[in-house]
Amino acid sequence: MRFLHTGDWHIGKHLAGYNLLADQHATFEKIRQIAKAEQVDAMVIAGDLYDRTIPSEAATRELTSELAELNIHDQLPIFAISGNHDSATRLGVGSQWFTSNDFYLNTKFSQAFMPIEFADTQLFLLPFFGLQEVRNYFADDQIKDINTAMKKIVAAMKKRFVDGKRHVLVAHFFAAGSQRTADSETMIEVGGLSAVNTDLLTDFDYVALGHLHNKNALQEARIKYSGSPMKFSVSEANMEKGVWIVDTAPFNIRWVELPAIHEIHVIESSMDQLTDPTFAKQYSKEDYYAIKLTDRQIIPDVMNRLRQYYPQIISLGRKYGFAGPHENYHHLNQRQSPKQLFANFFEKTVGTKLNAEQEKIVDTTLAEMQKGDR
Amino acid sequence: MRFLHTGDWHIGKHLAGYNLLADQHATFEKIRQIAKAEQVDAMVIAGDLYDRTIPSEAATRELTSELAELNIHDQLPIFAISGNHDSATRLGVGSQWFTSNDFYLNTKFSQAFMPIEFADTQLFLLPFFGLQEVRNYFADDQIKDINTAMKKIVAAMKKRFVDGKRHVLVAHFFAAGSQRTADSETMIEVGGLSAVNTDLLTDFDYVALGHLHNKNALQEARIKYSGSPMKFSVSEANMEKGVWIVDTAPFNIRWVELPAIHEIHVIESSMDQLTDPTFAKQYSKEDYYAIKLTDRQIIPDVMNRLRQYYPQIISLGRKYGFAGPHENYHHLNQRQSPKQLFANFFEKTVGTKLNAEQEKIVDTTLAEMQKGDR
Repeated sequence: MRFLHTGDWHIGKHLAGYNLLADQHATFEKIRQIAKAEQVDAMVIAGDLYDRTIPSEAATRELTSELAELNIHDQLPIFAISGNHDSATRLGVGSQWFTSNDFYLNTKFSQAFMPIEFADTQLFLLPFFGLQEVRNYFADDQIKDINTAMKKIVAAMKKRFVDGKRHVLVAHFFAAGSQRTADSETMIEVGGLSAVNTDLLTDFDYVALGHLHNKNALQEARIKYSGSPMKFSVSEANMEKGVWIVDTAPFNIRWVELPAIHEIHVIESSMDQLTDPTFAKQYSKEDYYAIKLTDRQIIPDVMNRLRQYYPQIISLGRKYGFAGPHENYHHLNQRQSPKQLFANFFEKTVGTKLNAEQEKIVDTTLAEMQKGDR
Repeated sequence: MRFLHTGDWHIGKHLAGYNLLADQHATFEKIRQIAKAEQVDAMVIAGDLYDRTIPSEAATRELTSELAELNIHDQLPIFAISGNHDSATRLGVGSQWFTSNDFYLNTKFSQAFMPIEFADTQLFLLPFFGLQEVRNYFADDQIKDINTAMKKIVAAMKKRFVDGKRHVLVAHFFAAGSQRTADSETMIEVGGLSAVNTDLLTDFDYVALGHLHNKNALQEARIKYSGSPMKFSVSEANMEKGVWIVDTAPFNIRWVELPAIHEIHVIESSMDQLTDPTFAKQYSKEDYYAIKLTDRQIIPDVMNRLRQYYPQIISLGRKYGFAGPHENYHHLNQRQSPKQLFANFFEKTVGTKLNAEQEKIVDTTLAEMQKGDR
């Protein structure tokens, strides 16, 4: 069989406050077109269909209609699992009815051990799980870590292997190869979470993973992250997004890129250049911008001025920090009086010293504040 | 055809803080048994399947499994609509897949005009709607009230009537007969909401309504509320709960009662009698209690003492108010000093006057409080 491997759709996600739903819909339409063009027999969605356990009504409408477009309108079989961002219960609503139309959506751990036979393949759909679920299922309190758990899980799955069939695992967890040099960043990125060792997954002809948003997080021939189909954060600005097209026999895998609907641009530049109309003209007002100013001075009303050219700024920082005493903001001289601190701040911000009248206001205000403290 | 008419399940509802889910599950099982015993061809659920627009995961699991038991396990067709308590979007998830198994769940206004033909009947499933939806659908801004809207709705439905078929409307709104003497209480109960005049509904062979929890809210031969299958508030304590069994041809309708899993008892009695073990023994500790004490004196620790016999108290009041100065709590003499007010309260509650040491504590505390006020 040939299938399209995607995952981490995170429908309903916001990017620094910007609603991505329209972009997500457009991205979905592109995935749908790829599925048609590649004439795949099915789509695999490896978890995190929603961004939140209680998705908004708009997100609910979007995902439900996407799945209906694929499975009911296009009559494309779907194999999907819940991820850590999904509520298994809420995502699973209706799944008992979906199977009759070849839409297999596993949200319960126990379902992973009932493979779906489809064409030449047995698909094992393992939703995101916690260790306690594994302990309960195997009635084994000794399962203390993810790799012990995965050994048990794979052994139980292998008992269901039918000879002559290809075996595909769909799962949503953090996996890492035994050669971890290339993965060191990823290791740090996911913090204390322990990783499934890819050596445990070699019994499968293909493992379709979700969880990490970077398709390059793993460098195994037959164990792949699809990554998210869109850039969901500044840290993903330079990642290539797309889907895998997988043939089971003979085995073959191909990457199909998904160009961003609206790019995330990371720009390091000066205020003068950024607000130069000729420079700004090369950038779309509908894209997203993470800006690092190379200037060191304070710039009044900086955000509003930048937004005239780049309305959707998702982060704003300084590459070299601030000039003058502001460099030392983090080791402020605590021995200065509050009045002196304010006077310094005023001078640096406004450009003039406090006059007598202003000084009086500061005195009165500070006195009142101190009274309140007592 | 023969169908069972129910509605207002309000899955996930709490009664004064008590989780009703177990009772709701048991009630559902009884409804299911009635459906089997009566050999109905289908079940009609007239809205408010959930109690809240964002039901809890437990409520979601419960309703989903109930519907699957009926429709997938028992292979019973279902005709259902969303009510004002449901989120149409959230409840509607999966409905596009349900129809292939004869589970028709309408949550969009426009769906009401596509009747489902089933056996000898056309069923029109009209979900809870707002006037704006009617205006949009008919592109008519002049629709200012519910009766104008219903006239349009019924006229549009009648265009779809097939001769020789029976016509059943399933809807969720407040309806009232033209002879409203018996409904005066109900009119008050639902406040300012305007009612659909039942005269507008006579083109249907039967109208299966949801919204009001009292099956006796309407007294029409072929326009019925099923009421809720359980008592959901003290005001429902004396209502008879159940479901309708409806035959379309020849037309016949029969009430089947649902005894409460756990009763709501409204008891007016004295503390002495309520805490008399012989008296208390007649009441189940698993039932719910709305208690009105006939005593007029203050009773220390009253709730805890009553809960020893009636653990699930959902309301506690006084039939005759309080004796003594407490009768006048609401016109407390504002000219008394705070100290005098407290001394009075202390004496009435504890039964003794403040002693010298206690008086001192009161003085000190009041002085500190007054300092804080300044």
